[in-house]
Amino acid sequence: MKTETTIQGLTASLAPARTAKKLIGFVPTMGNLHEGHLTLVRAAKKICDVVVVSIFVNPIQFGAGEDFDSYPRTLEQDSRLLADVGCDIIFAPSVDQMYGKQPRLTNISVSQITNDLCGQSRPGHFDGVAVVVTKLFNIVQPDYAFFGQKDYQQLAVIRQLVQDLNIPLEVIGVPIVRAADGLALSSRNGYLSEEQRSIAPTIYQLLKQAEVGLGEGQSLSQVLANISTELTRAGFVVDYVEARQPNLQPIDEFDRDLVLFIAAKLGSTRLIDNLQINFKT
Amino acid sequence: MKTETTIQGLTASLAPARTAKKLIGFVPTMGNLHEGHLTLVRAAKKICDVVVVSIFVNPIQFGAGEDFDSYPRTLEQDSRLLADVGCDIIFAPSVDQMYGKQPRLTNISVSQITNDLCGQSRPGHFDGVAVVVTKLFNIVQPDYAFFGQKDYQQLAVIRQLVQDLNIPLEVIGVPIVRAADGLALSSRNGYLSEEQRSIAPTIYQLLKQAEVGLGEGQSLSQVLANISTELTRAGFVVDYVEARQPNLQPIDEFDRDLVLFIAAKLGSTRLIDNLQINFKT
Repeated sequence: MKTETTIQGLTASLAPARTAKKLIGFVPTMGNLHEGHLTLVRAAKKICDVVVVSIFVNPIQFGAGEDFDSYPRTLEQDSRLLADVGCDIIFAPSVDQMYGKQPRLTNISVSQITNDLCGQSRPGHFDGVAVVVTKLFNIVQPDYAFFGQKDYQQLAVIRQLVQDLNIPLEVIGVPIVRAADGLALSSRNGYLSEEQRSIAPTIYQLLKQAEVGLGEGQSLSQVLANISTELTRAGFVVDYVEARQPNLQPIDEFDRDLVLFIAAKLGSTRLIDNLQINFKT
Repeated sequence: MKTETTIQGLTASLAPARTAKKLIGFVPTMGNLHEGHLTLVRAAKKICDVVVVSIFVNPIQFGAGEDFDSYPRTLEQDSRLLADVGCDIIFAPSVDQMYGKQPRLTNISVSQITNDLCGQSRPGHFDGVAVVVTKLFNIVQPDYAFFGQKDYQQLAVIRQLVQDLNIPLEVIGVPIVRAADGLALSSRNGYLSEEQRSIAPTIYQLLKQAEVGLGEGQSLSQVLANISTELTRAGFVVDYVEARQPNLQPIDEFDRDLVLFIAAKLGSTRLIDNLQINFKT
């Protein structure tokens, strides 16, 4: 496994694979890797010859007052984990390498599907994601790119971006990896105190209860209101509890597939989760 | 020479060249080709193995009331001209092929350098250019892309876009091609009446006079004011007469290289031109 910190180095490392027309898989991350990320790498290994994992805490997707400075940087530990799952190349550029010394004047915006859910409480976040992902795609030029379904809205934004700009690769969404107690794995879980960690799985429990409730004929508004109430009772500050069609459009008929979304804070840690619910027709 | 009208067809046509690692050159156009475009193709032939010319009148770079509907579409004539200069592949997609049936949600904006000059009188124009050029770059995946310096601001926007998004290609700017009387070649010259056509070279004459005036020590503001006055006297409606540094930043010192820009209407036809002036130090 090689580690490259410059675009030039990465390009040189990938040249033989590109010449040999090997399939290149790409897993963009912000590091501090957990089993969720490793699952993405394993999915990439299954269908690609060469797997590149980027580790880059992207400043422009963090808002003022968000956790850019404190976001955990654990490159050594990440490298060991990635070597174990067969990653071929780590791309770990500096901020300077990615954004240079010249001011960046180009912005990419995906409208509509970024207006609500995480877009509402994190203005500019998805623009920052769209820019860095487009840059990384152009640097790595992969055949396949892998993203977790935990960041469901991010995955939708990237699919839209790839389609709208004809970016020549296929986006693969990989199901959420959960702890034994149901908590969706996230680097931000590391911020939780022991007590908060014991409360955090409530999010997933409420999603599963909602699935049962909907199956039993409870109304969607009733189910969403119940999640909010129970989250607050458990000590969360609710950011949003929402239902959407799988393409993130508003629900217009009840009896079809939908996704439930939760974002809520425990102390200063913001957690998100989602559950796709498929109705039998 | 092949003509492809679908992305799939173009990709298939380019596959052998890509496999053989041939250098691919790309000249994006809106068709109605003249000697200026053909000069771009010749420049591409000089350094590339395979040259792709796109012909696509891009709806999203035209504003309301602009000439999208009346913009000349002359594919047959263009094909003959391109065959003569050794173009290998014409890519002439439909609007549907480029923008599909799904709504496009992604926008690309280059700030600052699009705020004035043509950006001011054509709001949204450079966003439309940035989106279509990014899409075409992703579809063609060229090694080199060729743009005329007549659309100087467009060239600067594309250079910025390529740099900011790490688009893996090199942008080549090609000098303006002029008629014998100095008029910069443009598809829109075809809109001019015989009388207007005889007046149109005034733009270039005034640029050259300004160069002389500046060399003789006239002030920049005096020179710019004089161009405006003379254009109006000749029957133009002036959109702008401006000077900028070559990177489009405002002039902050006089005694260095600058570019003079003119945009003016003759009847309903909007003409633009520019002249780079290099001061000896």
